[in-house]
Amino acid sequence: MGVKDPKGIGIVEPQYFTFAQAPHEMPLESGRKLGPITLAYETYGELNAKKNNAILVLHALSGDAHAAGYHPDDDKAGWWDILIGPGKAFDTAKYFVICSNVIGGCKGSTGPASVNPQTGKPYALDFPMITIADMVNAQKQLIEHLGIKKLLCVSGGSMGGMQALQWVALYPDMVLCAIPIATALKHSPQQIAFDEVGRQALMADPDWQGGRYYDTGRQPDRGLAVARMLGHITYMSDQSMEAKFSRNLKDENYSFSFQADFEVEGYLRYRGGAFVKRFDANSYLYITKALDYFDLSEGKLFALGKPVATRFLVLAFRSDWLYPPYQSKEMVHQLKAHHVDVTYCEIESTYGHDAFLIEAEGQTQLIKHFLSETLKR
Amino acid sequence: MGVKDPKGIGIVEPQYFTFAQAPHEMPLESGRKLGPITLAYETYGELNAKKNNAILVLHALSGDAHAAGYHPDDDKAGWWDILIGPGKAFDTAKYFVICSNVIGGCKGSTGPASVNPQTGKPYALDFPMITIADMVNAQKQLIEHLGIKKLLCVSGGSMGGMQALQWVALYPDMVLCAIPIATALKHSPQQIAFDEVGRQALMADPDWQGGRYYDTGRQPDRGLAVARMLGHITYMSDQSMEAKFSRNLKDENYSFSFQADFEVEGYLRYRGGAFVKRFDANSYLYITKALDYFDLSEGKLFALGKPVATRFLVLAFRSDWLYPPYQSKEMVHQLKAHHVDVTYCEIESTYGHDAFLIEAEGQTQLIKHFLSETLKR
Repeated sequence: MGVKDPKGIGIVEPQYFTFAQAPHEMPLESGRKLGPITLAYETYGELNAKKNNAILVLHALSGDAHAAGYHPDDDKAGWWDILIGPGKAFDTAKYFVICSNVIGGCKGSTGPASVNPQTGKPYALDFPMITIADMVNAQKQLIEHLGIKKLLCVSGGSMGGMQALQWVALYPDMVLCAIPIATALKHSPQQIAFDEVGRQALMADPDWQGGRYYDTGRQPDRGLAVARMLGHITYMSDQSMEAKFSRNLKDENYSFSFQADFEVEGYLRYRGGAFVKRFDANSYLYITKALDYFDLSEGKLFALGKPVATRFLVLAFRSDWLYPPYQSKEMVHQLKAHHVDVTYCEIESTYGHDAFLIEAEGQTQLIKHFLSETLKR
Repeated sequence: MGVKDPKGIGIVEPQYFTFAQAPHEMPLESGRKLGPITLAYETYGELNAKKNNAILVLHALSGDAHAAGYHPDDDKAGWWDILIGPGKAFDTAKYFVICSNVIGGCKGSTGPASVNPQTGKPYALDFPMITIADMVNAQKQLIEHLGIKKLLCVSGGSMGGMQALQWVALYPDMVLCAIPIATALKHSPQQIAFDEVGRQALMADPDWQGGRYYDTGRQPDRGLAVARMLGHITYMSDQSMEAKFSRNLKDENYSFSFQADFEVEGYLRYRGGAFVKRFDANSYLYITKALDYFDLSEGKLFALGKPVATRFLVLAFRSDWLYPPYQSKEMVHQLKAHHVDVTYCEIESTYGHDAFLIEAEGQTQLIKHFLSETLKR
């Protein structure tokens, strides 16, 4: 147990699993192959003897494997610490919780900043385009490596929810229940458009250098910061921005200049600037493209033709305008039409898309109950 | 009458009015002064002998004085041709319609690309920060120059609506009625945030050169294009993007590259690229800052302490999420609380913020009736 949170997860260690060594590279949806592949992951709680208490949680665009507890130098707990821990929604006293990073990322897993074994240099744009299905296929190797034949649950918010849906689409027999949160079966043109503006801002930065900025001493910090600033607007709601910033000024009066006059401007600049220190620009490009390519609509969730016995709890948030509740309702409609056991809950929250990272109580009640009901079956 | 539209306005000529020559520079809200000032404007219809049939229409962020009819080389009519012309909402058979450009712009009026008389070079960032009130004070000079003591109506959408509100705040005795459309008494933090991301994208472009790009052979086209792409997302609605683009691909399959796969991406890139050919980057910075500074909330519309006899018709569009109807309702609430005669109509439209430029029929009925009722009083 860590000192920072005596009742929580405590100190955790990042773990790594490497596979798909040549000549056994993993085939990708694009037709290309990738290997070797390293996946960063963390686990919380204990796998039981029957190996039937494992829950896989999956992260969003800029997330990582560090979902709960503290790394030794952390000031802040992992990104879903509100839901993972003893007595929490994903109760680590009962369940073995695994959080896997995605391929294409920059948080310990193989991505565009990794060394290309064929050249000895970072892949950069020679990294193959990856999809949500490719991320899930890599995670399946990890789950098998951990000796788990069937997951009790797969869950995540935003892109994490897409991975949960993709798990069911590809491996329905391996998933007893799924909890996709604040997500969609496909990106709408508006969602694609926001991603594309972020990518264009990033690629317009001359320090991007066609993606070959590693080891040049320059990287597209300004472009990536703009993309992230835009992201933050879409993660919050009109209401939550009003509550947090209103039209508060940084100084007493208007500056009548182009410096940041309003607190919201200062906040966005700060968040943009902080992000570039922890995220690789090319990973941002690859992962947003994977989001845009994702499409399990129109029955594609059931394309394997296998019956889907996975139970679903679908959660959405009233004020989420990036992944609006109507998209979750479309998902529920699809699932119902294919006779899947699905429960839908729309949680009253003013936090917008960020709500899945913030709303502890509403999510906890629903998830706890759903998991224990699933175990009774 | 132009061949292109035999029943419409026909061919129009841009006009220019120059004033505030040294030492009579116009004082600005910032405390600085500006002069000489040129305003570009156009007029449609005839001013009657009593000079009481004049309507002033005002444009949005990237608009100009060319509201109706055709310039000799135009393929497209002016930006509000759907509402201005013989028999239209602003009926040029009855009314004398004036459209004035704004200071700070780049469409024939004095702005950051204009020559600074003190240096003989373009102002660039030496141009003083301007506000919506400054724009209106310049327009007042034009209206007086035209010999008009009282305007029948002031109207505009988006920033044009802000100018209409500001006209009433500063010169209530000069405005018989006002029609602010798809606008707000102030920018919310979300609206400020979108503007700020656009500005940051633009200023991150090294070709911006601290604003001193004139005559360098380079200008921040990529940054301005990104800002405009973001703008276009906010001008449309989720529904109108779905109707126009859905997830349609440009080619048959995913490219698995960073080229534009989806039609919506191609559209945004095209619109961004087209915009930089017709708009000055520094004007974009100055005008968005004027939008963010604008604030007539909390009774500031009535700060002069004069009774406001101006009648109001306030219009908003259901699917406009950039200037959502709740902001128009707040405006109506303020007006009612100050005993102003106000009618509010929310128009059913899926076009989002762009609706004020597209929805001819709904706006025409309401505006026509409101103007003729105003004349009866």
